[in-house]
Amino acid sequence: MPNFRPDGQRVAVVGATGAVGTEMVRVLHDRGYPVKELRLLASARSADRTLSTPYGDIRVQPFSLEATAGFDTVLLAVSGEFAKEWAPKIAAQGATVIDNSSAWRYDPAIPLVVPEINPSAAIGHKLIANPNCTTAVLVVVLYPLHRLFGLKRVIVSSYQATSGAGAEGMEELLEQTRVQLAGGTATSKVFQHPIPFNVIPHIDSFQPNGYTKEEMKVVWESRKIMGIPELSASCTAVRIPTLRVHSEAVTIEFEKPVTPEAARAALASAPGVKVVDDPARNLYPLPISATGKYDVEVGRIRQSLVFGDRGLDLFLAGDQLLKGAALNAVQIAECVLEHRKAA
Amino acid sequence: MPNFRPDGQRVAVVGATGAVGTEMVRVLHDRGYPVKELRLLASARSADRTLSTPYGDIRVQPFSLEATAGFDTVLLAVSGEFAKEWAPKIAAQGATVIDNSSAWRYDPAIPLVVPEINPSAAIGHKLIANPNCTTAVLVVVLYPLHRLFGLKRVIVSSYQATSGAGAEGMEELLEQTRVQLAGGTATSKVFQHPIPFNVIPHIDSFQPNGYTKEEMKVVWESRKIMGIPELSASCTAVRIPTLRVHSEAVTIEFEKPVTPEAARAALASAPGVKVVDDPARNLYPLPISATGKYDVEVGRIRQSLVFGDRGLDLFLAGDQLLKGAALNAVQIAECVLEHRKAA
Repeated sequence: MPNFRPDGQRVAVVGATGAVGTEMVRVLHDRGYPVKELRLLASARSADRTLSTPYGDIRVQPFSLEATAGFDTVLLAVSGEFAKEWAPKIAAQGATVIDNSSAWRYDPAIPLVVPEINPSAAIGHKLIANPNCTTAVLVVVLYPLHRLFGLKRVIVSSYQATSGAGAEGMEELLEQTRVQLAGGTATSKVFQHPIPFNVIPHIDSFQPNGYTKEEMKVVWESRKIMGIPELSASCTAVRIPTLRVHSEAVTIEFEKPVTPEAARAALASAPGVKVVDDPARNLYPLPISATGKYDVEVGRIRQSLVFGDRGLDLFLAGDQLLKGAALNAVQIAECVLEHRKAA
Repeated sequence: MPNFRPDGQRVAVVGATGAVGTEMVRVLHDRGYPVKELRLLASARSADRTLSTPYGDIRVQPFSLEATAGFDTVLLAVSGEFAKEWAPKIAAQGATVIDNSSAWRYDPAIPLVVPEINPSAAIGHKLIANPNCTTAVLVVVLYPLHRLFGLKRVIVSSYQATSGAGAEGMEELLEQTRVQLAGGTATSKVFQHPIPFNVIPHIDSFQPNGYTKEEMKVVWESRKIMGIPELSASCTAVRIPTLRVHSEAVTIEFEKPVTPEAARAALASAPGVKVVDDPARNLYPLPISATGKYDVEVGRIRQSLVFGDRGLDLFLAGDQLLKGAALNAVQIAECVLEHRKAA
């Protein structure tokens, strides 16, 4: 199998049949992560099928702790409950575990890593948390601006794709749109309400303060990843009838004066970001252009009308299955591997 | 014709074949506006067809100044260019002209009216401007809060339906969604980019300050309607693949302390507003529930995380063809008529 490298790592992906797990395998291959052996694991319900991957056809095995024994890197694309129980046990066997769920993100002992921002936080840890998708695509844009101008207040409204709820979310959008176009009445199982031609300001569970957990994840995780515990941030998280890519309208107040030109220059040289900001040519971030891309598109950068010379408004679009999940997880694995080689 | 009243008004609708014009006729009838005669006018291209209306089948006539002579009330659902040229001439013939375009909204001599807020501004005027749709559904929610707590900063992100671009916008969404579901590649004529399963942060033309005209309309018109010329406000206006109803995520800083409970109570008794805010029962504003409704739905009311005890976050959804256009225009006509009767 030419794609495997004898000097590579033994890598397992748990939750390999889902939307994020599938992308993890694609991204490992696409980025040339050195893989000696790839094991695909899933729940008993999803296992025992063969997946067509860039590494060839691979049979999915049911997850067990033993099935991850001896692996170097284990990527988890599983539920929070599953990760809560199994991530420490897999890590105790020696693997570096990178968990895409929210189970460990708020534990002060566990690093929450976006490699463009805090790669060194991953070093020396066997269990590393991968951030929420909406947060990941946001902070790669915020952080370069923070370093120059100092974030003070961040207000986010999101336009989140159905694949944020997994492959089933996308399928429900496509299926129910067909139903509605045929004159039927759309129904919902994955989402709280029918999603075709609708928007739903409800993602994850409601918290006592009236915000959803998705909205609070953006606040909590942005603070932790960027190391700004006192950051004042707020979010309204909204599901919309798109397939892939989360977009966000962001208003920012900075500590220091800022101009759109200076922000554009800072973002143009920032890793993981692509400035798409030429309104005269109808160029700005779009879900359909950001789909399948590693970089988060940012544009519509303009001086804020509410925060004056210390404020910016901008719009971003990032593939939440990639930078928001699979890509970031693989980038963390790359960080860990580089550090091990250098040590 | 039993729907016509001998003691009623002579009413003409110009642009009667469009999405807004059609709704104007429906709303006139639904609200029992006293109509003695109804004339439907349109461009030569759209005229000479017969529309089925609640008043029976009516033949659409080509617009001419003469065709509006002798009418009491003329509702314009036409382009800004058309309104710029013809609105004053129609008004000079004696009719009260209510113009849904942006042509006259920023003229200090012309009132811009939302009857729940500034009905008296309409009195004594023959030409009255109807606001932008995104603004109209916003200010009915903002104003009751302003009266109690004093607006200081308002930050809006919109989720705007394709019918904001007229019936052609809706048709493009439906047609191109069918194309894409059948495996084809969606294209665009009405919008700048394909709209199925996409979002487009571009509505109306870009201004020198980087905001679109749609975004600036929200700023300019909110100030004028509510009489707060110094209001600090900003908007990101985004087209999304829905058919009808504009939704908005709104963050507000007030002059005085505010609580979600006090805001909910103020909005519960506000005209034109329906509080839909019971997250535990999955109740919050939705395009599919606000479609065809006169009231703007408001919910997700919570204490702002960025403005503390002087701030709120909320979400609203209003039928932009109704409160955002046709309903508001008919309500203005009602104001004028009531005042004439009382005088």
